[in-house]
Amino acid sequence: FKPIDLGDGHYLKFFYDAQFGYTGRNTGSGDEGEDSTNEFNFRRNRVGFIGTYNEKLSFYVQTEYIEDKNISPLYVDVSDDDDKNFYLLDAQIRYKVNGNLDVVLGKFKHSLTRENLEGCFNPLTLDRSHFVYAPFKTSRDKGIGVRYEVAEGLLQFRGEIQEGRTGDEGNGSPDPGSNLRYTGRVHLSLLDKERGYGYKGTYFGKKKILTVGGSAQYEADAVYGDTVDKTDKKDYVAYSADIFAEYPTDLGTFTASAAYLEIDFDDAYKGANPDSNSYGLNGERKGQYFKAAYMLPQPVGPGLVQIFGRYDNFEFANLNGFYDNEVDFYAGGINYYLNEDKLKITAQYSQVTFEDERGTDTNMQDFSTFELYLQVRF
Amino acid sequence: FKPIDLGDGHYLKFFYDAQFGYTGRNTGSGDEGEDSTNEFNFRRNRVGFIGTYNEKLSFYVQTEYIEDKNISPLYVDVSDDDDKNFYLLDAQIRYKVNGNLDVVLGKFKHSLTRENLEGCFNPLTLDRSHFVYAPFKTSRDKGIGVRYEVAEGLLQFRGEIQEGRTGDEGNGSPDPGSNLRYTGRVHLSLLDKERGYGYKGTYFGKKKILTVGGSAQYEADAVYGDTVDKTDKKDYVAYSADIFAEYPTDLGTFTASAAYLEIDFDDAYKGANPDSNSYGLNGERKGQYFKAAYMLPQPVGPGLVQIFGRYDNFEFANLNGFYDNEVDFYAGGINYYLNEDKLKITAQYSQVTFEDERGTDTNMQDFSTFELYLQVRF
Amino acid sequence: FKPIDLGDGHYLKFFYDAQFGYTGRNTGSGDEGEDSTNEFNFRRNRVGFIGTYNEKLSFYVQTEYIEDKNISPLYVDVSDDDDKNFYLLDAQIRYKVNGNLDVVLGKFKHSLTRENLEGCFNPLTLDRSHFVYAPFKTSRDKGIGVRYEVAEGLLQFRGEIQEGRTGDEGNGSPDPGSNLRYTGRVHLSLLDKERGYGYKGTYFGKKKILTVGGSAQYEADAVYGDTVDKTDKKDYVAYSADIFAEYPTDLGTFTASAAYLEIDFDDAYKGANPDSNSYGLNGERKGQYFKAAYMLPQPVGPGLVQIFGRYDNFEFANLNGFYDNEVDFYAGGINYYLNEDKLKITAQYSQVTFEDERGTDTNMQDFSTFELYLQVRF
Repeated sequence: FKPIDLGDGHYLKFFYDAQFGYTGRNTGSGDEGEDSTNEFNFRRNRVGFIGTYNEKLSFYVQTEYIEDKNISPLYVDVSDDDDKNFYLLDAQIRYKVNGNLDVVLGKFKHSLTRENLEGCFNPLTLDRSHFVYAPFKTSRDKGIGVRYEVAEGLLQFRGEIQEGRTGDEGNGSPDPGSNLRYTGRVHLSLLDKERGYGYKGTYFGKKKILTVGGSAQYEADAVYGDTVDKTDKKDYVAYSADIFAEYPTDLGTFTASAAYLEIDFDDAYKGANPDSNSYGLNGERKGQYFKAAYMLPQPVGPGLVQIFGRYDNFEFANLNGFYDNEVDFYAGGINYYLNEDKLKITAQYSQVTFEDERGTDTNMQDFSTFELYLQVRF
Repeated sequence: FKPIDLGDGHYLKFFYDAQFGYTGRNTGSGDEGEDSTNEFNFRRNRVGFIGTYNEKLSFYVQTEYIEDKNISPLYVDVSDDDDKNFYLLDAQIRYKVNGNLDVVLGKFKHSLTRENLEGCFNPLTLDRSHFVYAPFKTSRDKGIGVRYEVAEGLLQFRGEIQEGRTGDEGNGSPDPGSNLRYTGRVHLSLLDKERGYGYKGTYFGKKKILTVGGSAQYEADAVYGDTVDKTDKKDYVAYSADIFAEYPTDLGTFTASAAYLEIDFDDAYKGANPDSNSYGLNGERKGQYFKAAYMLPQPVGPGLVQIFGRYDNFEFANLNGFYDNEVDFYAGGINYYLNEDKLKITAQYSQVTFEDERGTDTNMQDFSTFELYLQVRF
Repeated sequence: FKPIDLGDGHYLKFFYDAQFGYTGRNTGSGDEGEDSTNEFNFRRNRVGFIGTYNEKLSFYVQTEYIEDKNISPLYVDVSDDDDKNFYLLDAQIRYKVNGNLDVVLGKFKHSLTRENLEGCFNPLTLDRSHFVYAPFKTSRDKGIGVRYEVAEGLLQFRGEIQEGRTGDEGNGSPDPGSNLRYTGRVHLSLLDKERGYGYKGTYFGKKKILTVGGSAQYEADAVYGDTVDKTDKKDYVAYSADIFAEYPTDLGTFTASAAYLEIDFDDAYKGANPDSNSYGLNGERKGQYFKAAYMLPQPVGPGLVQIFGRYDNFEFANLNGFYDNEVDFYAGGINYYLNEDKLKITAQYSQVTFEDERGTDTNMQDFSTFELYLQVRF
C-alpha cells in the first residue's frame, strides 16, 4: 500500500504480507512416523506499519503470526499446539543521519549472513538456507546498529551491538556473563549498488549486481563447556563470506550466489557438560550454500518464470546425537512472478540427507519435501 | 469505518469490533463453588484490516484478544490466567474469479453449520449455540475453500479442504494419520438471496429470507479407539441441516431458524482407550436448536427492540463422565439496536440442564446465567 | 499522527509509542550473580488505535509488546524467555455524556494512585514508582468507570467497578468469593485545571498546576489468611493521598509531587497459610514518594533540559522473607526534550537499599541501576 499522508512530513504506511501454501513431507506421520505428512499453513503472515516523523526519523514495526506448525526444516511435530505465536518480529526506530549514515535502535536483523539480510519476501529459492541461523538470537536481536556507505554505495560497513545470549539456568543452560554480542560486516558492491538495510535474492532482471561481502560476530564467555560446575567458559565467534551476482541479458536473467559460514564455540561441545546451545542445528558448524537461477526473458502468460536450484552442505559438531554429522540439502523449483514480489507462486522440491541416519526415528533420517506457496504483499 | 482509498484500486479498511459486558452465573465461586460468580469481560474484542489489491484480490485479517475468562458456556474457572490470548482469528487471501465464484486461502471458517457461518456480531440471540462447534478446529481452520453460486444466488455450493485434526501424542491423543478434512455445503435461498461468505442471524427487517441448507464434513482416520496400542482407527463424519426464515410485516419482523447436527466418530468412545477428542463437548453428539425472534415495527426510544428465545437440545456420547448425557439449553432475551449491529445492547437469561448431574461439582450441575452486553463496531 | 478523517464524524488515529534503551545493574550476572548485567530492551513498545464513532462515542485500544526482559525493578532474571508478551493493554469504549461526565467500559486504568494515572510517556522521572502498584490487577482492570467534573474542572470525581481479584486455586491462592473491586477518587485542581482521564508528570512549563487528590480501593473477602483450610477471609482496602505542583517562572520551571499509599489486607500475612498475594511487592505495605524537578528556562542545543530527583520509602509487611522490610529508592537524572514527549532522552541513576539484606542472593541485596532511554511517539 502507498503511505497515507498525514501532513507535516508525517507518513504512515500499512502492509500485510503473507506466504500461504502446502507442504508435503514423505515422513513424520502414522503409527511409526513413516507415513507422509500434509500441511496447509502460513510460512509468513505479517501485519506491519512504517511511519515517518520527518525526513530523518522513522519507525518500522511488523508482527508475525504462525500457529500450529507441524513441518519444520528438519523435523515433523504433528501435534495440536495451543501456543499462539503472535509476536513483534521487528520494532525499529531508524535515524538517517545523512545519505550515507543510518542508525537503527530496537529489535532488528543482525548482519552475520547475507541470506539473513535478504528479504524473506525476496528470496531466490523458496526460502533462505535452514543452516545459516545464528546461535541464540537466530535472526533478530535487540540493540543498536550503524550502517555507513562510502563512494556512493561501493562499500558498505555495518556494525551492531546487541543483547546476544541471555541464558537459561533453569533449563540447564546458564549464561557465564551478561556480555553483549558484536557483529560487523563489509561489502563491496560493483556494477549497480546494493544499498540500504536489506538485500534481495533477485532483482527480477532490473539490475546488474556483483557484490562480495564478509561478516563476523563475537560474544565473550557465551557458554560453559561444563554447565554443571559452571566452568570452562567459551567465547562465541562466527565468520561468513558471500558473493551475489545477477545479470540480465537478452537471453534471460542469470543469478548466482554462494556463501560460507563458520560458527565456533571453541569446541565447547567436547566439554564435560556442554551447553546444548553450543551444538545442534544452530550451534557449532561450518558449511556453505550455492544457489543459481535463470529467468526467462519473456513472460509466460501473465507472469515471469524463474527456474532455480540450490545446494547446501553443512558439517555439524553434533547433530541428532552424532558427532561431525554432515547434512546435504538439494532443492529445485520455479518462481512464477505475477507482479514481482507482490504476487508470486513458488514450487520447490527438496531433499535432505544426513551422513549419519539414526535408528527408527524418521526425524533423524533422510527425507524429501514438496512445497507450493502463494505470496501476496499488500 | 469507511475504507481509505490509496489509489490504483487499493483500499484499506480498518475495524474495531467489541462486545463487552457482564456475565453472572449462579454457581462457581466460594469455598464449595456454590456461590454465584460475577465477571466483566469482553466476549469479542477484535482489531482487523481488510485490504484490496484490485477488484479480484483482497485480504481480511482480524485479531482476537480475550484475557482471563472465568465463565465459559458450561464451566466456571475462577483463576488468574497469565495467558494473553492474542491471536489471529482470520487471515484470508480472497480471490474473486467472477461474480459467482470465489476462492479463499488461509485461515477461515469452515462450513459445517449455518450458525458457525453466521457473523458473531450478527447473531439473533446473544450468541450462537454452545453445542455446534466442530471437533479439533472448532470454527476456523487453515486451507483452501471455494464458493460457487448459481441462478443469481438461488443455489450456493461451498467446499473446503483444510488441515483438520493434527493430533497431540504428548497428551495421549496421537493422530492416526496426516489426513485433511473435507467440508461441503449447499443451500437454497428463496426470496431475497443470502450471498457471500457469511450469514446473518437477523437482517433487521430489511430482507425477506427463506434459506434451507445442508452440510457434511469428513476426515479419514481421525482418532484411535485405542490410543495406547494405536489401533482401532476411526473416521470422523458430521452432518448438518438447517433452515432460516425472516419476514418483515406491518406488525413487526418475525424470524425463526433451526438446525440439526450430528457428529460421529463411529463410536470411538466405546473403544478400549478412546481419544478424548472423540467425546465430550466437541466430540460425538447429535442434537438441534430452535430460535425465534420478533422485532417491533417501530423504534422504542432511539432504537429497535427485538425479543428472542432459543432452545438447544443435544445428546452427548459422553459428557462429564456420563454416557448418553443429554443437555438442554433455554434462553430468552432482548436486543436493543441503536444502529443495527454497529451499536446494540443485548440482555439474555439462560438455563442449562443436564440429564445427569454429577456429585458436588457445580461444573457438572444445572445452572443459570444472566448476560448484559454492549456491542460496538467501528 | 493526526487522525485520518473518514467522513461522517468518523476519525481513526494510529500511534506507535516506544521507549528503548540500555539498563545496567551492578549485580545479577556471572557464576554467583555478583557481576553486572547489561540489557538493551524496550520499556514500552505500543501500537494503538483511537477511533471516533461520533462526538460522544469513541474507542481506544493499545497493544504492548515486551520480550525477554531481564532486569526488573527489584530483580534480575537472566534467562531466554520464550514467552512473547504481546497483549492488549487497553481496550476502552468511551462515552462522553456531556462536557463534564464520561463513562468508560472495557479494560482501563483504575484510579488508586495519581502515578498510575500519570501517562507512562509523560513521567517526571524515568518512570513511576515501582512500589505503587495495586494487588492483583496492578494497573489496569476490566469493568466500568465514571468521571465527573464540576466547576470547570476544579473538582473531579472518579469511580470504578472492576473485576478485581479472580484467584488461582491451582497455585495455592484460591479466591474466597467472586467479589468486584471498587475504586473512588477525588481531586481538587487549583490554578490551571488537570482534566480528563490521565495526568502528566510534567507540563513542560506550559501550565501552572496545583492539584491535591485522594483515593480509596476496596474488595470484600479478597484473600484467605489460611489458604489451606479456606478460612480467615480478609478484605482488601487501600488508601492514597497525593499532591502535584508545577510552576513556570523566568528562572525555569519548578515541579514537585508527593504521595502516600497504604495497602491493607487486615494482616492476612500473619495468618496460618496466608495468600501470597497479601504480602510481597504488590501486597500489604505503606509508604510514600517525593519527586521534584527543575527545567532550564532556555533550550540547550535543540532541546529543553530538566533535572530531576526522587525518593521512595516503603515498608513492606513481608518482602524477601523478612517481616517489616523497609525499602528506600533514590534516583536522579536528566530529561532532554527534543520535542516534548514526542522525542526525548532520559538518563537516570538509582539506588535501592533494603533494611534487611538476605544471604548471598543478590536479588535480595542493595543494588544500583543506570538507565539511558530514548522515547519516540509517532
